[in-house]
Amino acid sequence: MHVDTLILVADLLGTFAFAAGGAYTALRAAKLDIVGMIFLGVVSAVGGGIIRDVLIGNIPPIALDVWYYLVVATAGSLLPMVLHRPNRLLKMTVQLFDSVGLSLFCVVGAVKAMSAGLTPLAAITMGAITAVGGGVLRDLMVKRVPEVLRTGFYVIPALVGATIVVVAGVVDVTSPWASLAGGLAAWLLRMLGVWRGLQAPSAPTEAAP
Amino acid sequence: MHVDTLILVADLLGTFAFAAGGAYTALRAAKLDIVGMIFLGVVSAVGGGIIRDVLIGNIPPIALDVWYYLVVATAGSLLPMVLHRPNRLLKMTVQLFDSVGLSLFCVVGAVKAMSAGLTPLAAITMGAITAVGGGVLRDLMVKRVPEVLRTGFYVIPALVGATIVVVAGVVDVTSPWASLAGGLAAWLLRMLGVWRGLQAPSAPTEAAP
Amino acid sequence: MHVDTLILVADLLGTFAFAAGGAYTALRAAKLDIVGMIFLGVVSAVGGGIIRDVLIGNIPPIALDVWYYLVVATAGSLLPMVLHRPNRLLKMTVQLFDSVGLSLFCVVGAVKAMSAGLTPLAAITMGAITAVGGGVLRDLMVKRVPEVLRTGFYVIPALVGATIVVVAGVVDVTSPWASLAGGLAAWLLRMLGVWRGLQAPSAPTEAAP
Repeated sequence: MHVDTLILVADLLGTFAFAAGGAYTALRAAKLDIVGMIFLGVVSAVGGGIIRDVLIGNIPPIALDVWYYLVVATAGSLLPMVLHRPNRLLKMTVQLFDSVGLSLFCVVGAVKAMSAGLTPLAAITMGAITAVGGGVLRDLMVKRVPEVLRTGFYVIPALVGATIVVVAGVVDVTSPWASLAGGLAAWLLRMLGVWRGLQAPSAPTEAAP
Repeated sequence: MHVDTLILVADLLGTFAFAAGGAYTALRAAKLDIVGMIFLGVVSAVGGGIIRDVLIGNIPPIALDVWYYLVVATAGSLLPMVLHRPNRLLKMTVQLFDSVGLSLFCVVGAVKAMSAGLTPLAAITMGAITAVGGGVLRDLMVKRVPEVLRTGFYVIPALVGATIVVVAGVVDVTSPWASLAGGLAAWLLRMLGVWRGLQAPSAPTEAAP
Repeated sequence: MHVDTLILVADLLGTFAFAAGGAYTALRAAKLDIVGMIFLGVVSAVGGGIIRDVLIGNIPPIALDVWYYLVVATAGSLLPMVLHRPNRLLKMTVQLFDSVGLSLFCVVGAVKAMSAGLTPLAAITMGAITAVGGGVLRDLMVKRVPEVLRTGFYVIPALVGATIVVVAGVVDVTSPWASLAGGLAAWLLRMLGVWRGLQAPSAPTEAAP
């Protein structure tokens, strides 16, 4: 299989997993109708990429410019209709796809931001936003403090993956190997985080200005 | 009266109604000062169109590019200052305008998105976002799970109206009749929903991944 | 010191103060990890300017296009790590910088919006959004009704400052004196508000449609 096809397939698997995970999360947090469930699933899946595309001037965003992202995201959002109580295998599968999506999204986001001429620091930020933006939007809409801001080892893998790609780009290593390394690092860190229950250090709670 | 004038008048009535309804809804949900009330009323009225315009690349958004949208929206937001406890007639009037706004916004959003070259599915999405985006933004800011995601027959009329317009556009019926049919269908469905208390089917509540 | 340098220094001081104030506010409202604290501090500092830049078509937004805004904002966000319980002097310093940032941001926002060809009313709105947008985004993410919508004398100084600049621009006074007058008016009003505990009038609380 051609490498571009491989990336597209992985991208769509990630989109599906983000949508499914997003729909389950939204349902746990709020009473919704079907339209709301689909809407929040789709937002979880494509929200980060849309924010990135708007900020780097890639308008209309890719998720609105080709048909398959919305279709795959809608399909993923419908999973809770089919499987009310996902079993252990499904949970692990969604989590695996989700971590693949995370790795891919942070790399793709950083690469696109560099191509658009953003500074390295902004490109790293864009990588992380691509990976976590959709989940943040979803959490806002179901009235939760975004999960990625409170707990869990999610933003850091995305930042690390994006940083590897951007640093490689700055020192002029634009080969696909840099993207591969960045994505792999993000994925391994995320898997490690899931497996060991890693957390970013807490911010000082007693801060009171 | 010329048809463009007619559309503009309906558009501004819809904007006024969205702003007034938005201000009342915001006040029910949170203690606000006058500035907050106006801000949330204006966001309710022009938020959906602004999101659409940013996503399709129509920048600056039309609501910021001509003066009358902001003026009409501000005027609508001030209605709660004049009428603290709107009577039955006013409520019905606001609801009528609101449904007119809904119908018009979903059609206009879909047409503009098609003109901008988005895919049919994305154009339908843009139609719905134009109609419900402002209300979603407002609900976020007063810490409510957006009403349209939980309950009520609001997104579905918008989707139906936009779909009619987009399907007609795809089969190359670009006459104003398609827009009229789409808007009328959305309006009738919404009115039916209000009258009969229709709801979209609930999403599975017991979903727990 | 050249006037442009002076403005840049004031802008970065404002960015630092917005980030520090934003991080403290976020920590008071929610339990966060370090990543979340930095994220919300940065959003507080650059969020308003990014919204403005997207809406006026200045893409990529300036905060992503040069490196120092993100660096200064990140540095400001880290202040709660160093000073858990800021003393009175620090609080006053942050508040002073914050009011300087407010004055500067509303003027800069209005000037940029006018240059981009927006209508006067939209330019005033953009000035206010530049000044308060970041704080609104932050409050959304920690599940608070945005402070500026509920209470306090914050939006009004921003609107007054932006209005002075825009009116001067409309009557063709494009000299830096207009910007200075607008910024000074916003700053004095804000300081007066802090000092005297001024509030915008409450919206009618008994409104119930």
